[in-house]
Amino acid sequence: MALKKKPVTGMRDVLPMEMQIRDFMMNQIKETYRSFGFSSIETPCVEHIENLTSKQGGDNEKLIFKILKRGEKLNVEAATTEDEVVDSGLRYDLTLPLSRYYANNAANLPSPFKALQMGSVWRADRPQKGRFRQFVQCDIDILGDATNFAEIELILATTTALSRICPEKTFTVRINDRNILKGMAAYCGFPEDSYDQVFIILDKMDKIGLSGVQEELLEAGFDASSVEKYKELLETIGKDADAVKNLGSTLAEVMPQSVTEGLAHIMETVAGVSATDIGLEFDPTLVRGMSYYTGTIFEVAMEGFGGSVGGGGRYDEMIGKFTGKPTPACGFSIGFERLVSILMEEGFSIPGQKNKKAYLFEKGVDSTVLAQLMARAMEERKNGVQVLVAQMNKNKKFQKEQLMKEGYEEFEEFYKDTLKY
Amino acid sequence: MALKKKPVTGMRDVLPMEMQIRDFMMNQIKETYRSFGFSSIETPCVEHIENLTSKQGGDNEKLIFKILKRGEKLNVEAATTEDEVVDSGLRYDLTLPLSRYYANNAANLPSPFKALQMGSVWRADRPQKGRFRQFVQCDIDILGDATNFAEIELILATTTALSRICPEKTFTVRINDRNILKGMAAYCGFPEDSYDQVFIILDKMDKIGLSGVQEELLEAGFDASSVEKYKELLETIGKDADAVKNLGSTLAEVMPQSVTEGLAHIMETVAGVSATDIGLEFDPTLVRGMSYYTGTIFEVAMEGFGGSVGGGGRYDEMIGKFTGKPTPACGFSIGFERLVSILMEEGFSIPGQKNKKAYLFEKGVDSTVLAQLMARAMEERKNGVQVLVAQMNKNKKFQKEQLMKEGYEEFEEFYKDTLKY
Repeated sequence: MALKKKPVTGMRDVLPMEMQIRDFMMNQIKETYRSFGFSSIETPCVEHIENLTSKQGGDNEKLIFKILKRGEKLNVEAATTEDEVVDSGLRYDLTLPLSRYYANNAANLPSPFKALQMGSVWRADRPQKGRFRQFVQCDIDILGDATNFAEIELILATTTALSRICPEKTFTVRINDRNILKGMAAYCGFPEDSYDQVFIILDKMDKIGLSGVQEELLEAGFDASSVEKYKELLETIGKDADAVKNLGSTLAEVMPQSVTEGLAHIMETVAGVSATDIGLEFDPTLVRGMSYYTGTIFEVAMEGFGGSVGGGGRYDEMIGKFTGKPTPACGFSIGFERLVSILMEEGFSIPGQKNKKAYLFEKGVDSTVLAQLMARAMEERKNGVQVLVAQMNKNKKFQKEQLMKEGYEEFEEFYKDTLKY
Repeated sequence: MALKKKPVTGMRDVLPMEMQIRDFMMNQIKETYRSFGFSSIETPCVEHIENLTSKQGGDNEKLIFKILKRGEKLNVEAATTEDEVVDSGLRYDLTLPLSRYYANNAANLPSPFKALQMGSVWRADRPQKGRFRQFVQCDIDILGDATNFAEIELILATTTALSRICPEKTFTVRINDRNILKGMAAYCGFPEDSYDQVFIILDKMDKIGLSGVQEELLEAGFDASSVEKYKELLETIGKDADAVKNLGSTLAEVMPQSVTEGLAHIMETVAGVSATDIGLEFDPTLVRGMSYYTGTIFEVAMEGFGGSVGGGGRYDEMIGKFTGKPTPACGFSIGFERLVSILMEEGFSIPGQKNKKAYLFEKGVDSTVLAQLMARAMEERKNGVQVLVAQMNKNKKFQKEQLMKEGYEEFEEFYKDTLKY
C-alpha cells in the first residue's frame, strides 16, 4: 500500500507558528486555573463503548470514532453488526470521562473537587471550514458543591483566564437557568412535552431576532396567546440581578423562587468582586444544547466576535449515573480552537517573548571552534535566550529570510578561515 | 448497558499529584528545547492505516488500535477480514507521523527543520506493571541535516533538559553507530545474513555480561574463532573518542573510516562544550531495537537507575519513503513515563512552588462579605499565589487534613456572625 502524505480526513497538522500560540494559551490557562485551586487531571483518550453510547452525549454519540476489538475477541467474518466488532472509542468530550474518573477515584480526591482538563476530543463530523475531527477542549469543573459558589468560582476563573490571554478585549458572560427557561414556558402555557421544541426555536434569537422567534413558534402551531405572552415577557425582562428577582415574583406560581434567588446571588457576588472587570448579563433566551444540564447555564462572548468563546453549566445528574449516589457538578469550558483561530486571524504576537538569535557557522569549522561556539550558545540559553545554531547553507540570504519568518532577528556568522572566533 | 467506572484495560486515570509532576516536566522540557531553537509541532493522534502498517514500525505494527470505518464505507455483514472494516488507527509512535508531516509540509518549514513533539501514543501491549497502553512520548528531531552537528545538538539539548528536571543527578549518554556494529561483525567473520541474530544476543550484555554473550553466540552455532575474535575486540576497546579512532584503523578493511571519524567528532565536540557536564561514552555493544536506524544510535542513563531514560538515532531513509526524495533525519526521545515513575518513587517535590492558601468560609455568609473575600483572593492570585476558596465543611478538621495532603499550608477562616471580615 502506498504511503499517504496528507493527514486523515478532517484532521490536521499544526505548523510551528500556530503551535506557539497554542502553547502560550495552554500555559496561561493552566496557570490561571491553578491559582484558583483547580487541579490538573487526565483520563485516557479511549473510553468504553458502553459509556460513550449511554445517551449522555446527545447527537455527539452519532459521531464516535469506534475502535476495533483485538485478538481472540474479534471475529469479523462471523460478525453482522458494528457492536460485535468494537469495544471502545475515542472520547467525544471531557465531561463524560470526568464523571467516570470521579466515580472511580472519589476516595482519593478532596471534596469538593476542582478539576482542570485540557485535552483532545474526537467527533466524526462532516468536515467543514474551521471545524475539525480532532480538537482541544479545555474544561474546569467543580464536583460535589451544590451551592452556587461553584458557579461564581467558575465564572471568575474563566474570565480571568480569558483576560490574561486577551488583556485588551472585553468579555461578557450571559447567564440563565434551565429551570427559568422551563418556568417561563410553563407560565406562558406551552404544553410540557413541547418545551424542547420551544427552546430550539428560542435558541435562534441571535440570528432571527424576537419577531423571527415569534413567527416560527406560530408556524410550529403553538397557541397564539402563549406566543404573545412569551414575546411580551422576553421584551420586558432586564439584564441585571434585580431583573432576575422581579422575574422570580412573576414566575412564583410555576417555579420555586429559590431558583431566581440563586441566580441573582451569583450575579451580585460576581459583580461585587471588584478585582475583576466582567460584564455579566441575565439572558432568558440562552438555551445551550447539551441535554445533561440541570440548572445554571452560561456562555461567554468576546467583544467584536459573534458566537461564544466558552460556555458551561450545572449537570447534577450525570455522576450519579456512574456511582448511584447523586453528586452535584458544574463546569465551564473555554472554546480553545475558536480562540486560536481568532488570535491567528488577528496576527497575535506573544507578549514578553525574548529575542531569537541564530548562529550560522561555515561548513568545515573544526571541532574546537564549534565547541567554543556551542558553549557560548549554551550560556545564552541558560539566560533564557532562544539560540539556534546552524550550518550556513549555500544560499545564505534565503536561509536568513526563512529564519526571519520564524522570528529570528539577530544573526552571528562564524567562518573557519578567519580569526573571528 | 451498564456504565463502567474503571478506565479501559491497560490505560489509566492520572491523579492530581502525579499530574503536577507531569505538567512540571513538560514545561521544563519544552522551555529547554525551545531555547535550542526547536519548534513545537503536532500531528493528529489518528493516522492512515496504510502508513501505520507500512513496515516502518517493526513489532509495534502488531499492537495498533484500529479504528472502524464510518457511514456507507462500512459493511460489517459483508466483511470477512479486518482490513475491510478499518481505515485508520491510533499512532504507535511520533516518528512515523513526523515523517508524514515533513513530507506534507516541507515547503512551509525551514531547512534544516528542528521539531519538538510531546504527545500520547498507543500500543495494545499485554498489560503489565508500569507499562500502559497509552503513554506520552517526547521527541526532538532534526530533519534535513546530514552532518553530525545534528547529533551534537540532540545530545546537548536532551541532557540539558534532563539536568533541568533532575539537577542533582548525573546522566551518561552511550553512543554507537549501526555501521560500526556491522563493521565489527564483518571483521570477526560473522556471516552477513546473521548480523541481526548476533546483535540481538549482543544487546543482552547489560544482563548476562560478556561471557554470557560469548556462551549464547556459541550455543547459537556461530564459529568459535569468530566468537573469540569478537570477545577480544569488545574487551579491548576503550570508551572515549580516541578509542573510536583506534577502532577505525582496526576496521579500515571492512568499513570506511569516515564512520568512526564522524562518531569521534561528535564525542569531541560534545566534550568540548564546557558549559555542560555530560558523561559521553562509546559503547560498541549498544544495539537499539528499531529497524529504521541507519547510523548513529544513542541511549541515556541516569545515575542509580537501571535501563535507559531516553534514546534515539539517525534514520536517513524513512522520510524518503513518503517523498521519494532522500532526507537525512536524526532524533532523540526522552523516556517521559519512565522519568515520571522515578520521580514519583523518589517523592519529588516541584522546586520554586509558591505557598498554597485556603480560605474557608462559613455556610450562609452573605453576598457582600463573600464578594470582599473573593476580591482579596483575586488580588493574591494576581501575585501568583494559589488560593483555594471553599465553604467550610461540617467536619472542618478532616477538611483541613485533606487540603494539607494537597499541599495547602496556610488557612484563613471567615465566619458570618463575627466582624472578622
